[in-house]
Amino acid sequence: MITMPTTLDALNSLPPASFVAALGEVFEHAPWVAEMAATGRPYSTVAVLHEAMMQAMRKAPPERQHAFIAGHPELGSRVKRAELTDHSNAEQGGLGLDQLNAEEFARFSRLNAAYREKFAFPFIVCVRRHTRDSILTQYQRRLDNDAATERARAIEEIGLITRLRLVAIVDGPGKPETTGRLSTHVLDTSAGRPAKGIKIELHEIGASARGLLREAVTNADGRTDTPLIAGEPLRIGTYELTFHVGAYFGREAPFLNAVPIRFSIAEPEEHYHVPLLVTPWSYTTYRGS
Amino acid sequence: MITMPTTLDALNSLPPASFVAALGEVFEHAPWVAEMAATGRPYSTVAVLHEAMMQAMRKAPPERQHAFIAGHPELGSRVKRAELTDHSNAEQGGLGLDQLNAEEFARFSRLNAAYREKFAFPFIVCVRRHTRDSILTQYQRRLDNDAATERARAIEEIGLITRLRLVAIVDGPGKPETTGRLSTHVLDTSAGRPAKGIKIELHEIGASARGLLREAVTNADGRTDTPLIAGEPLRIGTYELTFHVGAYFGREAPFLNAVPIRFSIAEPEEHYHVPLLVTPWSYTTYRGS
Amino acid sequence: MITMPTTLDALNSLPPASFVAALGEVFEHAPWVAEMAATGRPYSTVAVLHEAMMQAMRKAPPERQHAFIAGHPELGSRVKRAELTDHSNAEQGGLGLDQLNAEEFARFSRLNAAYREKFAFPFIVCVRRHTRDSILTQYQRRLDNDAATERARAIEEIGLITRLRLVAIVDGPGKPETTGRLSTHVLDTSAGRPAKGIKIELHEIGASARGLLREAVTNADGRTDTPLIAGEPLRIGTYELTFHVGAYFGREAPFLNAVPIRFSIAEPEEHYHVPLLVTPWSYTTYRGS
Amino acid sequence: MITMPTTLDALNSLPPASFVAALGEVFEHAPWVAEMAATGRPYSTVAVLHEAMMQAMRKAPPERQHAFIAGHPELGSRVKRAELTDHSNAEQGGLGLDQLNAEEFARFSRLNAAYREKFAFPFIVCVRRHTRDSILTQYQRRLDNDAATERARAIEEIGLITRLRLVAIVDGPGKPETTGRLSTHVLDTSAGRPAKGIKIELHEIGASARGLLREAVTNADGRTDTPLIAGEPLRIGTYELTFHVGAYFGREAPFLNAVPIRFSIAEPEEHYHVPLLVTPWSYTTYRGS
Repeated sequence: MITMPTTLDALNSLPPASFVAALGEVFEHAPWVAEMAATGRPYSTVAVLHEAMMQAMRKAPPERQHAFIAGHPELGSRVKRAELTDHSNAEQGGLGLDQLNAEEFARFSRLNAAYREKFAFPFIVCVRRHTRDSILTQYQRRLDNDAATERARAIEEIGLITRLRLVAIVDGPGKPETTGRLSTHVLDTSAGRPAKGIKIELHEIGASARGLLREAVTNADGRTDTPLIAGEPLRIGTYELTFHVGAYFGREAPFLNAVPIRFSIAEPEEHYHVPLLVTPWSYTTYRGS
Repeated sequence: MITMPTTLDALNSLPPASFVAALGEVFEHAPWVAEMAATGRPYSTVAVLHEAMMQAMRKAPPERQHAFIAGHPELGSRVKRAELTDHSNAEQGGLGLDQLNAEEFARFSRLNAAYREKFAFPFIVCVRRHTRDSILTQYQRRLDNDAATERARAIEEIGLITRLRLVAIVDGPGKPETTGRLSTHVLDTSAGRPAKGIKIELHEIGASARGLLREAVTNADGRTDTPLIAGEPLRIGTYELTFHVGAYFGREAPFLNAVPIRFSIAEPEEHYHVPLLVTPWSYTTYRGS
Repeated sequence: MITMPTTLDALNSLPPASFVAALGEVFEHAPWVAEMAATGRPYSTVAVLHEAMMQAMRKAPPERQHAFIAGHPELGSRVKRAELTDHSNAEQGGLGLDQLNAEEFARFSRLNAAYREKFAFPFIVCVRRHTRDSILTQYQRRLDNDAATERARAIEEIGLITRLRLVAIVDGPGKPETTGRLSTHVLDTSAGRPAKGIKIELHEIGASARGLLREAVTNADGRTDTPLIAGEPLRIGTYELTFHVGAYFGREAPFLNAVPIRFSIAEPEEHYHVPLLVTPWSYTTYRGS
Repeated sequence: MITMPTTLDALNSLPPASFVAALGEVFEHAPWVAEMAATGRPYSTVAVLHEAMMQAMRKAPPERQHAFIAGHPELGSRVKRAELTDHSNAEQGGLGLDQLNAEEFARFSRLNAAYREKFAFPFIVCVRRHTRDSILTQYQRRLDNDAATERARAIEEIGLITRLRLVAIVDGPGKPETTGRLSTHVLDTSAGRPAKGIKIELHEIGASARGLLREAVTNADGRTDTPLIAGEPLRIGTYELTFHVGAYFGREAPFLNAVPIRFSIAEPEEHYHVPLLVTPWSYTTYRGS
């Protein structure tokens, strides 16, 4: 069940039980976090509310905290998908963790097992900030951590996950920044004007696969009508924009036809602007602003 | 049997029979072309010799000319490969026409059949100037020609084929240009100097496959020690250079890692220079000189 | 006397005499234009009002039209400056026509005389869309026109002049576009971010002089806080932006220090965006959007 | 008197007196340097010969060394020009130190006096590696040195001066590198080919003046037939290349007409390659190789 959006004002004035009903799912299987946060009301901003919930979790007795962390679902576990809460389910769908082939599934399973063996809790990551490949990289790096570092790391990820959940259901002042933006702009520098009507594709480039995320066509200002990605975190990973400039310039046997620009995103909440300055015989790209 | 290289001077002074023995295979199964050319000696340049052989062929009686054209091997015919002359065999090896999958083989067979049905001679193309994809494009375009146009087109291709063969076996002044060149150059414009040690790959990009043609590493001048392609015609087609700039700049989580530059070659005997001006956050490429 | 700004609504409802008092100066010494326009009220937009005034002028009897055109002040005439209306005075101040040296003054005087000799009315040009150099070019081109063409040309310029005057004093819907924009943006492509704190100068580059129009410093987004020019027409002419990148990069003995970008503006009501992508060793500029 | 060029072989076998006659002027008014070097023959390379002469000078008794250093002519002293040796005369001619205006002359005189007051010998600099501006910068920096540092600095400059002189008059193996190179290349990236027929000017940009060093026109490969500067050291200083692209593209009212590229040279014996990639609406420049 996805909780309906509400406002910070409403939350500030609800009876405690209703407050917990509204926010209880934000922290996975842990309504006690919302219970503790209910006592600190009113909150001036959404960010302050989120910080109060994180403090409640950080100050919980070790057993309770451990049980909370351990109660998170396993990543990559197909058989457990039915047991994910609604939130986790939606988050993993977009990434393609539900589409693992046999080899990948085995690899995830091994990493899951190794992780649980070492840390005695499941691997927790804010999947909405990641691609399948960057999650694998995370697994490998974090397996090298010691227990204390990794427990802090898990809590940090829980902070990212719950921040997204809270922002999704609470309207109000002082929302923390949880979304990034990917945009482009095509200039025809042989004509000195925006390139209109260029077909663009955006792919995610994984180690074992390539997924089409978006198709668009440039408008009269050489931009796409809406950003390529906006309103959600950018997933850490590698992407390729393909600009179909051959059709735009309309020459026979063109030197440049489909121009691929491959780049990586490391900061999910930032703005990545990746423009193309193009002629039939040359182009320039860069991280813009 | 591949004829051994010789010199124009030697050819000019050989007895006619030896001249024919030396050049008889240049025009497929048609030693009579060399026989006629033998009478016009001496030739001042290799280009003049080749033109004399082409004239001999063009002036031949229609039946002889037709038989000559009809005597060329079918393209894409696996079962006929054993009957190709040594020259044709070597030329098709490089292109991958011997590696057609079942569907492609069927397509080539259909096109071959349609072509022969319409023109009553096999499809002739200078394969060393082509990729598998550009040959398919040729088939489709040339099937639309009328008989006279296509006969002229076949002779034109025979001119390109025999020019390559002649240049390969005769040393001497005035060789016609039969080779192109593909080169690159990487400049690190954040440091103002050539980028040394950048790994580069060159792939042929076909509609159904991608073939690795070359791997190289840039030297202290930002160039490859030898051109990426030289000493042969460039094959009409689409290519991709991949520059591994991430390892060169050595940053963690780089914005640019493997930079692909995709371009098409339309003129097999030209020089294509495709440089990269690169920083960790931007790059420029262009057809240079 | 400069008329105070008013609104289209107010103009639509004023008594005719007040309407003429408000707009009588828009057409130089020709209150009869406003008188005729007063009868066509109400006007739905400022553009429609202006067009109605232009129609009144175009339909006037030839003698009246000629007297109107002939009543305009001479350009470049120092002795006549006192007789300019307030509007003309302000317009010529910015251009520097009042700062002609002896030689230039003589040249303007000769051109004025030649023009009057040929056409029997003074040279009329919308000076706010021009630099001193582009006016000289105009003189020379227009002297080649025949009388009919040049009379039409003079009326066209009067249209541009009066459009600016009307827009300046009337608020309301449907104002015609009378202003252009010049902007810039500096990206440090060696760091992948906007270049903050770059000093910029904008000069007008005339044949005989160079005038500093603007100084600015880039902000955190690599832009100037306000456009380099906005709110007025861009003057047709040649400009130079100087970007002080040496101080920004802070290297000793820099390869690039003051980077000049020289460009010409031909369309006064357009947006010219002239960005700089720069590293310590390279830069790119282009007409952007 | 300029000594005639000779060869290292000849120098190795001359009688000592002739050897000294040939090289005696290389070290200003100090034939004893050549006398000492004569005893170390034969020399395998020109560089070894030069190093031997420098060692002779470095090992000279302090009084002799001081007298040698003190015997150099004053820079910027007009009244002393007649007393310069032939070498010094030629070297200063190119720089324009003989064309100082009254203010500059006074400045140089003050700096000369301050330098002599502090160090008791004249300011020595290899002027052929400098522009007027970079010499002024040198003066100011070196006046801050202590006596020992500055004596070493003077000997270093004498090494640069005499290396140039020796290379100019001795042919033979192992010549040290005494020349730099400045070159350019213009590519029309809207057409994908070299830009032929572009007029180029090279100016030296001084603080108080601007000197035209070279005019050239690009050839079919987009280059100048000879490098812009070669066969001599590049002078440390600031330069401007102007590319007349407006005439090349042939459009009316072009956005880009004369494109100035301003850059500084810090390393006189290096190769500076400064290309232009240009369309009617954009350009890119960089330090190439």
